[in-house]
Order: sequence, then structure tokens, then C-alpha cells
Amino acid sequence: MKEINIGLAGFGTVGQALYKVIEQARNVHARIAKICVRSLTKPREIRVPESLLTISFTEITRNPDIDLVVEVIDDPETSFRLVSDALRNGKDVVSGNKAMLARHLPELMELQRQTGKALLYDASSCGSIPVIRNLEEYYDNDLLLEVKGILNGSSNYILSRVFDHNEDYADALERAQKLGFAESDPSHDISGNDSLNKLVIITLHAIGVYVAPADVFVYGIPTLGQEDILYAREKGMKIKLVAQVVKLSDDLFTMFVMPEFVAPNRYIYAVDDEYNGVVIRGECYDRQFMFGKGAGGLPTASSLLSDITALRHDYRYEYKKTAFAPRPEYTTDIPLKIYARFSQTNLLDGLPWLAVSEEYRSESFRYVVGEILLADLIKSRKLLEAEDVFLCNFPRFFTERDD
Amino acid sequence: MKEINIGLAGFGTVGQALYKVIEQARNVHARIAKICVRSLTKPREIRVPESLLTISFTEITRNPDIDLVVEVIDDPETSFRLVSDALRNGKDVVSGNKAMLARHLPELMELQRQTGKALLYDASSCGSIPVIRNLEEYYDNDLLLEVKGILNGSSNYILSRVFDHNEDYADALERAQKLGFAESDPSHDISGNDSLNKLVIITLHAIGVYVAPADVFVYGIPTLGQEDILYAREKGMKIKLVAQVVKLSDDLFTMFVMPEFVAPNRYIYAVDDEYNGVVIRGECYDRQFMFGKGAGGLPTASSLLSDITALRHDYRYEYKKTAFAPRPEYTTDIPLKIYARFSQTNLLDGLPWLAVSEEYRSESFRYVVGEILLADLIKSRKLLEAEDVFLCNFPRFFTERDD
Repeated sequence: MKEINIGLAGFGTVGQALYKVIEQARNVHARIAKICVRSLTKPREIRVPESLLTISFTEITRNPDIDLVVEVIDDPETSFRLVSDALRNGKDVVSGNKAMLARHLPELMELQRQTGKALLYDASSCGSIPVIRNLEEYYDNDLLLEVKGILNGSSNYILSRVFDHNEDYADALERAQKLGFAESDPSHDISGNDSLNKLVIITLHAIGVYVAPADVFVYGIPTLGQEDILYAREKGMKIKLVAQVVKLSDDLFTMFVMPEFVAPNRYIYAVDDEYNGVVIRGECYDRQFMFGKGAGGLPTASSLLSDITALRHDYRYEYKKTAFAPRPEYTTDIPLKIYARFSQTNLLDGLPWLAVSEEYRSESFRYVVGEILLADLIKSRKLLEAEDVFLCNFPRFFTERDD
Repeated sequence: MKEINIGLAGFGTVGQALYKVIEQARNVHARIAKICVRSLTKPREIRVPESLLTISFTEITRNPDIDLVVEVIDDPETSFRLVSDALRNGKDVVSGNKAMLARHLPELMELQRQTGKALLYDASSCGSIPVIRNLEEYYDNDLLLEVKGILNGSSNYILSRVFDHNEDYADALERAQKLGFAESDPSHDISGNDSLNKLVIITLHAIGVYVAPADVFVYGIPTLGQEDILYAREKGMKIKLVAQVVKLSDDLFTMFVMPEFVAPNRYIYAVDDEYNGVVIRGECYDRQFMFGKGAGGLPTASSLLSDITALRHDYRYEYKKTAFAPRPEYTTDIPLKIYARFSQTNLLDGLPWLAVSEEYRSESFRYVVGEILLADLIKSRKLLEAEDVFLCNFPRFFTERDD
């Protein structure tokens, strides 16, 4: 088998891990021939010959000696320019950049079609868990009903420290940052935006529809408070940050990212620390649960490696479900059952509740449990961003089945 | 997309479920054009036009109108003749027959090579969990260290009734048979032979080596007794029937099927009832856990459907790992730590223990915990089949990592 030459863009934690993994996996017959970095002189754990490094990405994307480009840089817009340039210059590409992909997938699908080159990105969602590949290849029919999961390791680590180890939220957050679970911008993890990016990618492969991140309701855990933790504990539940896409009928589906009360009988209850877990539910196969390390250098690198070898065998995503008929449409016109906690901001009067089933008021805070349209949560985004507010979803309101 | 015509061999639980699933999954563009059955007049849940039925398998395998053969019959030797005939007559084939595959994989690999036609069989191992496809495509490098799991739903159901629901073993067995979890020959499930067949298939795709079932140590749960259940319970463990293939080094791997003591911190501890669960461990990606319904008509049918659509996209197993160098060799020359319970049969003197760490004797039974070579267990098969004997493996003896 001919050895292939990889051009690697980005040499941080993941890039260096890939370097190690490729050295270890003998039967891959690949070598890293060029590495594009931001700084030639920055000290790194792995020492490579200076001749391998470049600061110009076109030395990778337009280099005739490079067969394949692997992109693991931070900045989404640089990443998009780099990936596009590589495809246009006849390179297959592997990317792990979920923020870039979530924003640019439609253009990148079109660019793959035009150039005939392939872009793979299984590492972008759930690190080492092969979610995209399985949705694309194995669950490639319209029996799929739901994909629901914990897609962000850092926020799950924080929640796990709080609910499984009784730590303070603030301590847990600090510890997660120290351990380096967080992205370069840690606010992405706890805001839910990282989960949202992955959900957008997953939805394209699960349902065949691209929905822009800006159109999806996302609510994170920055304002999670002791009151909310106690509320969940009293009911024997944990709070998890859950991303979900759910087919409501043949014609409609919905998706959102929100904290959710999780009871012990659910698979994702046991997904602790920095792990990710995804439940795939279908009409005939019931539920499948996939579980593994969602982040970290080596797990992500091993996922990149799987994409690299897949390209060697001319694999490409065919986005088959985008051609399905009927293909369901995205809706936010569904009622959710929500717990809303607040103090100054009056969410009881400030939100268009369809029904209120619980009201609680103490000297320091209030909460409401009630039904509200997802569309109205989106309209009320500004209000819900207040520091004294926290929202949490009750699952299984619009579906009777377990997950 | 052109509709493809499927020739279906076998119209029992799985065959009928596939019929339903194909009707339900609109974007598959396939129809069942002919069904080979043993009896034309047997009453069935699903009524199909008489013209669809035949009792001659060549009406499927040699029928020019048939594009694809799906085989879900019981008898392994008929299945092998049918599958071979179909491949030779230019049909792609999907099979769910693990006993046939475990016995005939080398010939069937060769036949695929000769004919250029493809044989897919993801439904044969773990029903709806895409184990084979992921081992072949995603974990397609030599970083994989171990595949370990609960591969048989009926025996797991029985053990789950005993350990999770405090039922008597005899009651649990009876209930499993009533619920129809068992294969047409239920002894296959509790003897471990069904798990063994799946392990043989999995090993080919995990390590790239075919090992005949007869060369692998298999020990089941027919002789599990109240003493053993109590022993496990006292130590806070469950007994599970575990199939495993483990890379010991770059040069060696081992495999076996045995009851195993499972502590609560392990993933497979939570695999209850008729579910299957598989842990895949690798050098870089740590552990992945896949969980789902391992048996039953619809889950198996949905897996067959995934293989059918994969064939539409010209997918075939490439058995890449069979070409890996170095490729580890199968060994049974490894010490296991074993619990052996007996009464008349004297296993203390009758087995070549390397070391004995515990001995217990009461009026009604005895047990020994000690180290013994797997090769010596194979040599002592006859002795270990005695009705007063039960063996159970202590995990993590030759590997320090969790599973």
C-alpha cells in the first residue's frame, strides 16, 4: 500500500495527539508531511523537524506532495477558508472543527459535489464515538426517530462533579478549567453552543436537513444555582445538558439544547465525568446507546485516524437522507414542559405560558413549572439570558417512549 | 432510484419482521419479490400472496429477477449451500446466520473474492448494534486491544432475572423460553455456543484472524447453582456470560466465552434483560460502549435493512485486517483466574492448577479459586462438563485496564 502524505493544519493538543497516533498505528501507511502552525517558535511537547513546519496554509492546501489535509485549528473562519481551498485544490479533507462545520455545511456539501473531493468529520461530534458514520451508513433509513445525548464533555464533567460528587458548582467549573477539558473559549462549553454545533451536524446526518445554529434554541448551565440543584435532588434526578433532535411525525421534527432533568432509569443518567453518551432511537430497533470519551487529544485523534483510513478506501458521506421524500420540516411550534427559576426577572408574567402547573415563592427566589412553546422561548431569549434566571426541561413531554 | 427485488430465504420471526420493516421504510426502494419457505401451507402471522412463496431455494438464488438474497433460515448447512449458490449466481447476499458464518467464513471470504459479489452479515452479531460494521470501518486500525461483551440476549435475560430480580434460576430459564427469547435450539444460548459463533465473526473483523469455533474454549451457564449465585452476591458482583477477544501483545491474542464475575463499576454490569452490550477498547480511544437490543424480530430486521441499503451503495467488507502485518496469533497459553465449584468431581486434584488461592468445603459442595492455563481448561473439557461443576472467570487478570 502506497504511503500517503498528510498535511496537518493545527498542532495543539489534538494535532500533536494525531502525530503520536499515526506513529503508533503501523498499518495506516501514512505520514505527516507538513504541519501548518501559527507560530514556528512556540514550544511544544512534541519536537518535529523545523522543515516540517510552515505558517502558510497554502503550503498544505496547494502542495502537490500532499494527498490529504487534516484540519484541527481553532478559528472557524480560517478553518473554512483552509478547508475550501484544500477541496478546490483537489485534496480530500478531514476536519474536527464543529463550529466551522455547523456554520458552513451547506457550502461544504456543494463544494464536495463540485470538486468531487471528500470531506469527513466524524471527530467533530462526540470525539471517539462514531456517531456521524453510523447515522450516515447504518441508520440510513427513515426509521430513525430521535438522537439525544450528552455531546459536550466539559459541561458534563462540571455537572457530574456537582451531582455525583457533591461539589460546589463554582469549584467544579474551576476544576474543569484546570484539567483542560474546556475548549480555548470555555464559555462555549457551558453555554451549550458547542453541543449545538454538534447537534446541527448530527441533524444533517440523522434527518437529512440542515438547520443553522442561529435558528435553534440553546440554553446552557452558566446560571445553574444551588436552588436548582436541590430541586433536582429532591426528585431523585440529575441535571444534564442535553442536545436532541426528535422526529414528531413524518412531516415535522424539532431540535434544541437545554439542561434537562434526568431520572435514574435513563441511559444518559450514568454518563458521568467527561464522557459523552448518545441514544439513537428508531421505529424498529428501539434504542441504541453509544458511550465513550467525547473529548481529549487521543480519543479525537483516533477518530481523525478512522476518517483518514476511510478516505484511503474512497469513502465519502453521501448525505443520502437529504434526498429522502418526505423529508420532515423543522418546527419550533411545540409545547415543552419547563422549570423556570428566577428572582428579579418576573418569568411568571414575562413568558407566554400555555399552562402553569407549579408555582413556588420564597424570600430569595421563585420558580414556575409550566408548558410553553419552544418558539416562545426563542422569542424570549433576551429575557432568559438574565443572570437570575435558570431553565430546565422536563423530558418525555411530547414523546411517550423512554430514552 | 431503481427498486430492487429481494429474494428472502426463511419466513419465521425475523423474515416476517423484515417484510414489515421494508414496507415501513419508504426510502429503501426495495421489495420482497420471492420468499423461500419450508412449508407452503404453514399458517403465518403475515399473509402474503401464494405466488410469492416457493420451497425451492434455487428459485431465489438463480432467479434472474432477483437482485439480492437475504437469508434468515435456521439450519446452518442449508444456509451455507444457499448463500454459496447465490454468490456463485451473481447475487449479493445478506445473512443473519451466525452458526453458518462462524463455521464457513474462510470459504465465504474466498467465494466473495472469486465471484466479486458481496456478503454482509451485521445482523448476525448483536442484532441491532452495528458491531461488525464499526470494527470493519471505524476501528479499522491496529490500535484495537479488546472486544468484550454480552452477545446473547436469552442467557443474559436469565442471568438478569436471577441477579436483578431475585428469581430462581429454573424459573428464569422457563420464563425465557416462554417469552421466546431462545433460539430454535435454546441449549445454544445457555451453552455459550451462540455467543461463541458471534465471537468468531467479531474476531475476524476485530483482529483479522479467523479461529474455528471448535478451537475456542466455551463454557456456559447450564450448571449455574445457588451456591455460585450466593458467592457472587456476597462479593457484590453479578455473573454474566461474557465473550471476549483480547490482544495480549502485538504478536498474541486470546479469546474465550465464559461466565464472569462482573463488579458494579463495569459497563456490562448494567446490561440487563435481553439486551446486548459490547465494550471496544483501543490504545488511544480508551473504551467505547455500545448497547442495544441483541435479539428479536424487529431489531434484527432493522440490522438486515442496514445491510440491504449498504449493498445498494456497493458496500462490501474488505477484511482489511487480514492483510495487517504483524497480525497477532491466537494463543491459549495464558493463565486465567478461575472459580471452580464442584461436589463429586474432584476439580482440586483433577485440574492442573498453577496456583490455588482459595479452597472451600461444605457438606454439600466445594470450590477452588486459582490460576490455570486456558489451554488446560480446553484439555479438561470432558471433566468440566460434569453436572456438578460450574466455572466462573475473574476478569482483569491479564489486563490491568478497566472494562
